[in-house]
Amino acid sequence: MSEFTYKKDIFKEYLTFSQDKSFLLESGKTFGPITICFETYGKLNRDKNNCILITHALTGDSHVASHDELDSAGWWEDFVGPGKIFDTDKYFIVCSNVLGGCCGSTGPSSINPETNEPYGINFPIITVKDIVNAQRKLFDFLNINHILAVVGGSMGGMQSLQWSVSYPDFMDGIINLAAPLNLSTEAVGINHIMRKSIMWDPNWNNGNYYGSDFPAKGLSIARMIAMLTYQTRDLIDKKFGRKIKNNIDDFFKSLDAEFEIDSYLSYQGEKLVQRFDANTYLYFTRAMDLFDLRREYGSYAKALSCIKAKFLLVAISSDTLFNISELRRAKDILKLSSVDLEYNEIQSDYGHDSFLVEVDKYKDCISNFLDTLHDEINYRETWKEFEYSTGNI
Amino acid sequence: MSEFTYKKDIFKEYLTFSQDKSFLLESGKTFGPITICFETYGKLNRDKNNCILITHALTGDSHVASHDELDSAGWWEDFVGPGKIFDTDKYFIVCSNVLGGCCGSTGPSSINPETNEPYGINFPIITVKDIVNAQRKLFDFLNINHILAVVGGSMGGMQSLQWSVSYPDFMDGIINLAAPLNLSTEAVGINHIMRKSIMWDPNWNNGNYYGSDFPAKGLSIARMIAMLTYQTRDLIDKKFGRKIKNNIDDFFKSLDAEFEIDSYLSYQGEKLVQRFDANTYLYFTRAMDLFDLRREYGSYAKALSCIKAKFLLVAISSDTLFNISELRRAKDILKLSSVDLEYNEIQSDYGHDSFLVEVDKYKDCISNFLDTLHDEINYRETWKEFEYSTGNI
Repeated sequence: MSEFTYKKDIFKEYLTFSQDKSFLLESGKTFGPITICFETYGKLNRDKNNCILITHALTGDSHVASHDELDSAGWWEDFVGPGKIFDTDKYFIVCSNVLGGCCGSTGPSSINPETNEPYGINFPIITVKDIVNAQRKLFDFLNINHILAVVGGSMGGMQSLQWSVSYPDFMDGIINLAAPLNLSTEAVGINHIMRKSIMWDPNWNNGNYYGSDFPAKGLSIARMIAMLTYQTRDLIDKKFGRKIKNNIDDFFKSLDAEFEIDSYLSYQGEKLVQRFDANTYLYFTRAMDLFDLRREYGSYAKALSCIKAKFLLVAISSDTLFNISELRRAKDILKLSSVDLEYNEIQSDYGHDSFLVEVDKYKDCISNFLDTLHDEINYRETWKEFEYSTGNI
Repeated sequence: MSEFTYKKDIFKEYLTFSQDKSFLLESGKTFGPITICFETYGKLNRDKNNCILITHALTGDSHVASHDELDSAGWWEDFVGPGKIFDTDKYFIVCSNVLGGCCGSTGPSSINPETNEPYGINFPIITVKDIVNAQRKLFDFLNINHILAVVGGSMGGMQSLQWSVSYPDFMDGIINLAAPLNLSTEAVGINHIMRKSIMWDPNWNNGNYYGSDFPAKGLSIARMIAMLTYQTRDLIDKKFGRKIKNNIDDFFKSLDAEFEIDSYLSYQGEKLVQRFDANTYLYFTRAMDLFDLRREYGSYAKALSCIKAKFLLVAISSDTLFNISELRRAKDILKLSSVDLEYNEIQSDYGHDSFLVEVDKYKDCISNFLDTLHDEINYRETWKEFEYSTGNI
């Protein structure tokens, strides 16, 4: 009897660690069964040395890019595909919706088999380490015990950092885009406000809103707050300035009249509500708050000394959420810990969002780094036996 | 029959422009009657040339300082009093709660005499110009037709700027602390989010919550958002770091566990809810959005060319809400407009809040400026006839 059950739905693949009571969370609790939804791009080669794991940020999912021309665009469409930075003609790309998510993997909106109701806030508190441990199990199923690289930005960068420390022999390279060693006090505070805006929405109903009204307003407020941290003040000043949506006379009639920046923010709030679960937002922001390798290792230096992979750390000059000073601190401690580090500062006007939108600025630094990871990868020789996806289990 | 009715309640004085239907708002609407609540400190001298108007910021009121040892502290306690920067042994200080406020002056929580119900959102949209015009009427009542200076920070600075343009002959000096010529796109966006958090609180009830449950959660969210803009990330990092309020184990039990920054923000939210009206928060943030002298004058240069007073503009180096670049822009345009300008940049780690807390950094620059305004002020000779407060009307 297999440890796993597996199903596939067009491009999304779902792996359930069947009745796996041994999945131990950082809290000390065991939790399961867990389903991890993932998507793959490109093909694993015979040597199984061309696999890259991409980890997603706060509101991401497994759909990192489109699979064909008819498929919808992914969240890193410009970065992943044939001929792109993460060239799917060369690499076998894996991207999973992380534990706690709302896009196929087990999260607060999933059915708790013990109650037949959604978990809601009975979902356990999870950490970035738990998220990474669940991803690790995915590779057991894929029968891959070493990969070329783990890559992620923002909350995805935290995962890449955790991977490098928790499983130092598992990868040749780590690419961490814009994630510091821990959240700043300000970022923790912002997460607090965003969670309160959700939890104080009466529709939140202590997390039990599935099947009834969604806490859309609370999640919208959270998203609007977040959007202002992802960009720079200069950028939105250039984009929107003081342009008004309505006629100026409307401003003297009602508080509802909007500047263009107001409409933009409201629209971004509405869009997220269409696709994201409010409880997952709570659990992920808390996982980010709690990301702190010192809890397990005592100090950053001790934690980072575990790292064996080559490490590419990329900071964004104008990032107001994860400030350049925090990334430089990460760089310093990584160096002190004798990590084989490459550090790069992207000069950008975009702020935190840069790693999602300015593909040209990342192309050389990431491509060159990937090239250094492995001397000889035979990209063309696809491993024919690797056919879990047609049901080898 | 007087144009005014007046009453006094210990230190607070209330002036009502009786049935004053001629109070024309910038929107073109007439509005009234209007009551302006004000407090005075020190005494007007015989020459009536020692009066300073202090204008308050978003959540301020007329209580700029305590009146005696038994009185509660005011919002600018360190700045106003005997021997302080605004020395009440020398100056006659006037501070009014501004139009639209919730601390004695007519605002959305006031009773609309036509309906005998609070105005709520039937209160008209007001602008900084309307706020200043109402303050101007206060001086008609006080029988003062020229004052030494108008002083204010943040939204108070916007008022001082409007005063200097609308009533150029009325004062010798203007002190504008930290207010730019207009809100940045980001600040407009933050105001939008804060208003939405209030208006989406079900207790807001389209503004009709007086006598029933207050939209406390919405106003708390707004205040928490604002608090992070009033300080710098470095400052809160030093103050709170990643210290936790609860035991780390509590974080694995519930989403309610708090870092110290979380508790601090929540506490600030709760405190504002005790003393401030949510509708006033809506009207004031919108008045700040709409502050733009170009609407009336066509260009900043044309507007600022009206100014006759000496002008002290003070910028805060670390202000993240009203960025130093915006203040430098204001300085440049004031200079281009031939304003007799003194410009000062306060080197501070506090951010926007600096002008409320770092009294020592402002002492010399403000005191020296006040000294230049008038050659000969006889502070000791009090104008005996000035006794409106004992009922001369």
